[in-house]
Amino acid sequence: MIKAGIIGATGYAGAELVRLLMTHPEAEISAISSVSFEGKPISEIYPAYYSLNDMICENADDVVAKSDVIFAALPHGLSQELAKTCHEKDKIFIDLGADFRLENEDDYKEWYGGEYTDKELHKNSVYALPEFFRKNIVGKKTIANPGCYTTGVPLAIGPAVAKGLVETKGIIADCKSGATGAGRGLSQNTHFTELNESFHPYKVACHRHTPEIEQTLSHLAGKPVKITFVPHLLPVNRGILSTVYASLKDGVTKEQIRAAYHEFYDSEYFVRLLPDGQIADIHNIKYSNFGDVSLHIDTRTNTLVAVSAIDNMVKGAAGQAIQNMNIVFGLDEKTGLEIIPPAF
Amino acid sequence: MIKAGIIGATGYAGAELVRLLMTHPEAEISAISSVSFEGKPISEIYPAYYSLNDMICENADDVVAKSDVIFAALPHGLSQELAKTCHEKDKIFIDLGADFRLENEDDYKEWYGGEYTDKELHKNSVYALPEFFRKNIVGKKTIANPGCYTTGVPLAIGPAVAKGLVETKGIIADCKSGATGAGRGLSQNTHFTELNESFHPYKVACHRHTPEIEQTLSHLAGKPVKITFVPHLLPVNRGILSTVYASLKDGVTKEQIRAAYHEFYDSEYFVRLLPDGQIADIHNIKYSNFGDVSLHIDTRTNTLVAVSAIDNMVKGAAGQAIQNMNIVFGLDEKTGLEIIPPAF
Amino acid sequence: MIKAGIIGATGYAGAELVRLLMTHPEAEISAISSVSFEGKPISEIYPAYYSLNDMICENADDVVAKSDVIFAALPHGLSQELAKTCHEKDKIFIDLGADFRLENEDDYKEWYGGEYTDKELHKNSVYALPEFFRKNIVGKKTIANPGCYTTGVPLAIGPAVAKGLVETKGIIADCKSGATGAGRGLSQNTHFTELNESFHPYKVACHRHTPEIEQTLSHLAGKPVKITFVPHLLPVNRGILSTVYASLKDGVTKEQIRAAYHEFYDSEYFVRLLPDGQIADIHNIKYSNFGDVSLHIDTRTNTLVAVSAIDNMVKGAAGQAIQNMNIVFGLDEKTGLEIIPPAF
Amino acid sequence: MIKAGIIGATGYAGAELVRLLMTHPEAEISAISSVSFEGKPISEIYPAYYSLNDMICENADDVVAKSDVIFAALPHGLSQELAKTCHEKDKIFIDLGADFRLENEDDYKEWYGGEYTDKELHKNSVYALPEFFRKNIVGKKTIANPGCYTTGVPLAIGPAVAKGLVETKGIIADCKSGATGAGRGLSQNTHFTELNESFHPYKVACHRHTPEIEQTLSHLAGKPVKITFVPHLLPVNRGILSTVYASLKDGVTKEQIRAAYHEFYDSEYFVRLLPDGQIADIHNIKYSNFGDVSLHIDTRTNTLVAVSAIDNMVKGAAGQAIQNMNIVFGLDEKTGLEIIPPAF
Repeated sequence: MIKAGIIGATGYAGAELVRLLMTHPEAEISAISSVSFEGKPISEIYPAYYSLNDMICENADDVVAKSDVIFAALPHGLSQELAKTCHEKDKIFIDLGADFRLENEDDYKEWYGGEYTDKELHKNSVYALPEFFRKNIVGKKTIANPGCYTTGVPLAIGPAVAKGLVETKGIIADCKSGATGAGRGLSQNTHFTELNESFHPYKVACHRHTPEIEQTLSHLAGKPVKITFVPHLLPVNRGILSTVYASLKDGVTKEQIRAAYHEFYDSEYFVRLLPDGQIADIHNIKYSNFGDVSLHIDTRTNTLVAVSAIDNMVKGAAGQAIQNMNIVFGLDEKTGLEIIPPAF
Repeated sequence: MIKAGIIGATGYAGAELVRLLMTHPEAEISAISSVSFEGKPISEIYPAYYSLNDMICENADDVVAKSDVIFAALPHGLSQELAKTCHEKDKIFIDLGADFRLENEDDYKEWYGGEYTDKELHKNSVYALPEFFRKNIVGKKTIANPGCYTTGVPLAIGPAVAKGLVETKGIIADCKSGATGAGRGLSQNTHFTELNESFHPYKVACHRHTPEIEQTLSHLAGKPVKITFVPHLLPVNRGILSTVYASLKDGVTKEQIRAAYHEFYDSEYFVRLLPDGQIADIHNIKYSNFGDVSLHIDTRTNTLVAVSAIDNMVKGAAGQAIQNMNIVFGLDEKTGLEIIPPAF
Repeated sequence: MIKAGIIGATGYAGAELVRLLMTHPEAEISAISSVSFEGKPISEIYPAYYSLNDMICENADDVVAKSDVIFAALPHGLSQELAKTCHEKDKIFIDLGADFRLENEDDYKEWYGGEYTDKELHKNSVYALPEFFRKNIVGKKTIANPGCYTTGVPLAIGPAVAKGLVETKGIIADCKSGATGAGRGLSQNTHFTELNESFHPYKVACHRHTPEIEQTLSHLAGKPVKITFVPHLLPVNRGILSTVYASLKDGVTKEQIRAAYHEFYDSEYFVRLLPDGQIADIHNIKYSNFGDVSLHIDTRTNTLVAVSAIDNMVKGAAGQAIQNMNIVFGLDEKTGLEIIPPAF
Repeated sequence: MIKAGIIGATGYAGAELVRLLMTHPEAEISAISSVSFEGKPISEIYPAYYSLNDMICENADDVVAKSDVIFAALPHGLSQELAKTCHEKDKIFIDLGADFRLENEDDYKEWYGGEYTDKELHKNSVYALPEFFRKNIVGKKTIANPGCYTTGVPLAIGPAVAKGLVETKGIIADCKSGATGAGRGLSQNTHFTELNESFHPYKVACHRHTPEIEQTLSHLAGKPVKITFVPHLLPVNRGILSTVYASLKDGVTKEQIRAAYHEFYDSEYFVRLLPDGQIADIHNIKYSNFGDVSLHIDTRTNTLVAVSAIDNMVKGAAGQAIQNMNIVFGLDEKTGLEIIPPAF
């Protein structure tokens, strides 16, 4: 059994890792940590786990010591040192934060205001969105797990960009996220009475996931891509729906579009390319690691409307992190992740 | 007192007209009708009105006979004959349906599959979105009240289009509507357990409001405009948020954009142009006739992101219809509509 | 015009007072105060009011100085001194907090842990639930506005208790409140993701509203009444539904029960006794000052099940406070409160 | 592998059986049927299952022929003949409907209006609420799976009744159910806009689950028990919270109460008796087969308030049915049901 430790286990991504790892047949949770709740059982913070997992939160050092693989779900800026420690102890480090996601340090400086303290470590890390970069992940020890929007948007538009079927200029990603994306921390924005029966965009065209999405799309396009990205906050718990708009290149047909997506996704267990006429809906992937993708053409304006739906806490965070663990440890990628999304 | 009659009073738009007209100081409800519930009190269908309005639903003829102004909230295709009758009896007809909204009969044929039975009547009708076409409304007797999305999208992007500050090619309207937009009729899509904790687009790039939005924007631009319009269904009762994207013309500044919107909206009671840094939210206009508009510039891609929030049942239907009644009858436009949106 | 001031205007009850007073035809808001937001416009905290009410929050002294009637929506313990000041300046004081609600100081000590600093003032104050104690209110200057549950439960069971039709021993009040009842302050309990798709009781059999409900029922019964009161938190914004169970006395008929309620409520504008077969629902009274009451008999166990629905922020707080203002100032009780509850 | 067939697979209980059986390690779905959707894939009705289970709905005969165990999720009245067929073919029949739940045919006649067509078969069937009647289930072939409320209420109050610690007269069960309890069929009551932001009781003191709950409590008490049962409809998808009130017998202590519940539940995997001070919440058992129980004493009125939370579709329907299958087939009871409830 793989010994898996979780640092930052009482945040939402950490708690979701706990849920998923508890039923993983090839891994066991070796230790968990929390700065805010050290010494307390995780089930006190999340009573859903009562009697099923009453592990006591320890500190980060304990987790590192007891684990083969360390998942870190921390605010940005706190992972770099931890990654270094893990690297020195020859342990796998899977970072659910942003510290290793951006290849260009200047982007990190601009959007997060920090620096890369160990450039060598960054060079040896990998941006681990398996559906597009799987082969890079194998053999790596410092794994940057993608963010939620940054998984959803490329799943929607990636194949069209990679195959050169759409203009890379003018791509619009209009995304809508459930409230778990804002985490466990309290804020007026996520106070029940203010979010319920409410809907609005936030961080319009200035969200930190912008450069990360662009990095992925640029790799797929083979040239720099800039997008307009506007996230919105949905009054639901889970799920991100990304509606992505791109101009079709002249002469590109619907059939070519579908063929490109089939080529990318037919062998991907976690991506369900929906049949023509179906529409992606967060309702259908909740609590699972699946990403549903539907394709629509506006023939009046020659625009591709590509829609993806993922569970932001699973495919957008903890589930994808376990998918990456499976890859790194040479397991079948879907091990522990064959969750049937509930129908309602 | 203006005698106001409502045909189709038991649908959602009709029921909202009832609510708003009950407190209108210059109008009284003269009669209401319903095909499905003829002979029953409206308060049996909507117990919220119990003891406050227990009027019995009559038939359409009764309503016409007893009223100075007739509001019709009917499925498309049923208003034309009614409009003619009202015209012959010299009564004001305010249509909340689509039969008189499209100036070009070919558009009506294409999107609704019907014909204009009395072309003269159509010619004398008016598309009544007061904030843009107020002066056309005065003196008219056949009033086409705009649809919900078709109010929200122009409120967001209209001034930029009218002032020529954005490219009219490539405009994207990504809209999200509360469930009242789907009406009182039952459907699997609006079954609680399927809409709750759900979110998805529908009628992607093929919704009937497309030509109506384009008609308004084309008038404002002074040339034909085509847009990509994708509506989504929100798990909330009320509100439409429209996020509209348009490429800024070269050299256009944020200041020019704001100036254009101020010019359009500073004298409009029902449009609240939000200060820089604020973001429109359906939470803030619920149950009222206000439309909030916020402006955002993506300087990285030179894109205007204009956002509007309206209550789809009020500014998007019944409230705007009463606003139009006020105009036609020479009343202060806000009579009966000075509702303070609840803070939560 | 009555000059009405609001102390604690940025809490939910205060903000709701602002909303309702803005359209009151005989009162105007003279000043508002907030400790947390002094110097800021109320519309910054509640953008729903933007451009409609941008009054600046002052301090409590300013409010007292500028007003004929002072509404206080403060945490318990803070109203007594304020009440005294108002009394000395011969101004009407309407307290939305608990400091003047309990006639027995021992109850206040036990449940709130405080003392009555000016016993004379307490003696001259009045517990102002108009439907039961209207005649006591006239001429009073220190008005204790009832709490939310403490309005809903008596509306449901009061007439049966007053007429001696049910056993006063064994009354169960199972109440369910929307999240606005918990106020604007942040808590894990009212974090969107934790309250959404959730439901649970809280403060089981130990909520502070217990002695207040018992005080009202004891007055109506003419003897001491003790009840079991269990509140629950609903994932909705507004509304309290109270399901109250009481054993029918031997031989009491359904007709006697209905007659008792008719006697109490037929002349009450704000209480709607629903016809036999109808069921009270918070859906039907939202945003209004109405309380709906429905009556049900379990003939198998000879139990009366009386159900009431009120909007906790209106009839359960701000609306009732204005109703009390109207009484004290000799206005028609429904002035400014004739709000039609929306049908959806 | 056990061959498990589902009749009525496209209703909510049937669809939930599909979800749970898909990951059961000792069973496989042999066939599914649906009257409304015969010939169509289940994933067309429930797109959450797309690509994971695209089985075609057959008819009931096919299901019986292909299966060792037949689950029936049908409207009442339709199971009796099916049960007989299964009995004759020596197959296990697990009925999620009501036809075999009531031991007394007169109760069935009174509450469901039908008759027992094969009295012998009824005599040999078993009411299968494992936590109370496990030993009766072993060896039986016609299994009556309890309803949702009828699982939740006994889990809350059963031990106190069984141990004679509370008065059996005057028990009140105030229950609140999520909307999945109303099934997939459309109704105005479960139309999104009418249930959302709504809350009300229904079938007050006349719900068909009443005699079933009483049957269980009577068995536990060893004498006839009558209760007052009032269900309410919650605007959430899943979960039933039951707040059950019973008068403590004189001298009964809190310790005796807890001891009784520990005796019943310490060996029950699926019942989590919460520590003193914790409160049961539907949030914590969603999508799982767990039932959480919390105990509270109102010392002022000497009343036990026992609260249980279950997922109405799992422990209240499909999960319990699989638990019963496991018992009948001699498997570990929790096989296939070790689902960790999500924390949010």
